[in-house]
Amino acid sequence: MNTAINNSIHITSDDIADYDSRYRAKLINSLSGFKSANLIGTIDEDLVTNLAIVSSVFHLGANPPLMGMIIRPDTVPRDTLANIRSNGSYTINHVNSAIYQQAHQTSARYDASVSEFDETQLTPQFTPNVKAPYVAQSHLKFALEVRDIQWLAVNGTVMVIGEIMEIITPSDSIKADGYIDIEALDSVAISGLDGYHQTTRLNRLSYAKVATTPSALSIEGANLVE
Amino acid sequence: MNTAINNSIHITSDDIADYDSRYRAKLINSLSGFKSANLIGTIDEDLVTNLAIVSSVFHLGANPPLMGMIIRPDTVPRDTLANIRSNGSYTINHVNSAIYQQAHQTSARYDASVSEFDETQLTPQFTPNVKAPYVAQSHLKFALEVRDIQWLAVNGTVMVIGEIMEIITPSDSIKADGYIDIEALDSVAISGLDGYHQTTRLNRLSYAKVATTPSALSIEGANLVE
Repeated sequence: MNTAINNSIHITSDDIADYDSRYRAKLINSLSGFKSANLIGTIDEDLVTNLAIVSSVFHLGANPPLMGMIIRPDTVPRDTLANIRSNGSYTINHVNSAIYQQAHQTSARYDASVSEFDETQLTPQFTPNVKAPYVAQSHLKFALEVRDIQWLAVNGTVMVIGEIMEIITPSDSIKADGYIDIEALDSVAISGLDGYHQTTRLNRLSYAKVATTPSALSIEGANLVE
Repeated sequence: MNTAINNSIHITSDDIADYDSRYRAKLINSLSGFKSANLIGTIDEDLVTNLAIVSSVFHLGANPPLMGMIIRPDTVPRDTLANIRSNGSYTINHVNSAIYQQAHQTSARYDASVSEFDETQLTPQFTPNVKAPYVAQSHLKFALEVRDIQWLAVNGTVMVIGEIMEIITPSDSIKADGYIDIEALDSVAISGLDGYHQTTRLNRLSYAKVATTPSALSIEGANLVE
């Protein structure tokens, strides 16, 4: 790898503008780093369920508990956005290695009348307080009520912000300090448009303070003996 | 793990509101899934360099090439936001496993007059066209010009949107179709507030189409022989 690193290239904005659109999409989508792999579950007024993989879910705040995601109106999750607008509720379901191929398949352009649950053999799961389907096969999932939908003038994408109303996960995946061991739950990460990855933990690190160096924590969040 | 999965708990919004604030922060920060690990490089009017780890960088679009990130004005990257406002330029640098502890340490509350580069022994690197420092030790890095800064009314966080002006990476990390092999570059992923992970690729998958199932691609993006 050292040889490669000594052969770095500098790509300019002119180069980017000149690329073929598919090449550019794959390159630029690789730049942000590893992305979360989540299935967004919704339901329409005719009770047709919908499922769409989204790699742009991001943490916005813990109090109140808020999550953001970016939807591109010109690509597949159109039904997702329409359902969130009409219904107000949606679920976010971690993709794990047992279902990543089915999750990827939800990005095909199915008609609004077709449920991606049926097409991909994923199982809708409902709880009493949520008007949207969870994915039964997901090991960490949560429901949200929409709080804001913003059209972003820079490129016409849409940011959806929701508040977390319910969380479902195995109780022993939540560690003593609140950290959830999503690696043990087999959640996967995405690179670019189509790369799926499992993970191996390097460490949890202690809260950073001036004039110290971070030390490794136990999985429960406790300081380890030096 | 099956036992655990059969012991799922349902956490309600009342439960979340009742948690201790640190427990809630660690729990909610774990929900979005794996996050990108990036160092944001900036410089102020007195030429003091600044470096801050951010886990909320997200892809916004490829044409024009746009990237978003969330900054919490009440936490450490205040200098980052001030520098982006005054200067207009910033860099995003992938964190790899050789520097993840130094990257984490940039989240300590250093004074604005102190450079996190100096404090963490990371090396600033400049190119002729960019008014912000890169991290020399990062294997994939790019420079942006700010296009929009939005205050989000839902919780007072700030979204910064930038356009990518330059990309630096080893030439052989860019595959035939534009995909960048960020796993080979040793980029890490973050879970929660303090978990760092390396990755192992499951597969690249073909573009999803109705009535087919996704197939594995080579790392170069070519269809494999069935």
